[in-house]
Amino acid sequence: MARVVVDVMPKEEILDPQGQAIAGALGRLGYAGVSEVRQGKRFELEVDGSVSDADLAKIAEDLLANTVIEGWNVTRVQQS
Amino acid sequence: MARVVVDVMPKEEILDPQGQAIAGALGRLGYAGVSEVRQGKRFELEVDGSVSDADLAKIAEDLLANTVIEGWNVTRVQQS
Repeated sequence: MARVVVDVMPKEEILDPQGQAIAGALGRLGYAGVSEVRQGKRFELEVDGSVSDADLAKIAEDLLANTVIEGWNVTRVQQS
Repeated sequence: MARVVVDVMPKEEILDPQGQAIAGALGRLGYAGVSEVRQGKRFELEVDGSVSDADLAKIAEDLLANTVIEGWNVTRVQQS
């Protein structure tokens, strides 16, 4: 089994109101040094040897991310 | 400015119905090799030098994660 991490983040050019709300809250709480926050999703998958990198790309692109507004990144973190 | 990533994931002992729904959908779509999916959040912060590691831990613990059900991890990915 291998652990795979898929990160899904809003694209740079897409407004991220959740992130902006967090950044605003941090400013009010005294953390003026945080200038930008963007919020995305992180998926951790347990996969066996039958799942190829191409499969993982397809899973990320078709199921986990909305590619109109989100980018994704697949990382295999643990191989066994 | 430095880029900081905060990962927030449901704790191991906490049921993750969103992740289970994705795992079920993947099985129906023919990806039987994916045995488990857990869904969490990923935050990307732009911080300046005034934000210490202790500040980041406090931000993650107090604001970004619900520590009753979620664990968090802070990583500085880029230093400049």
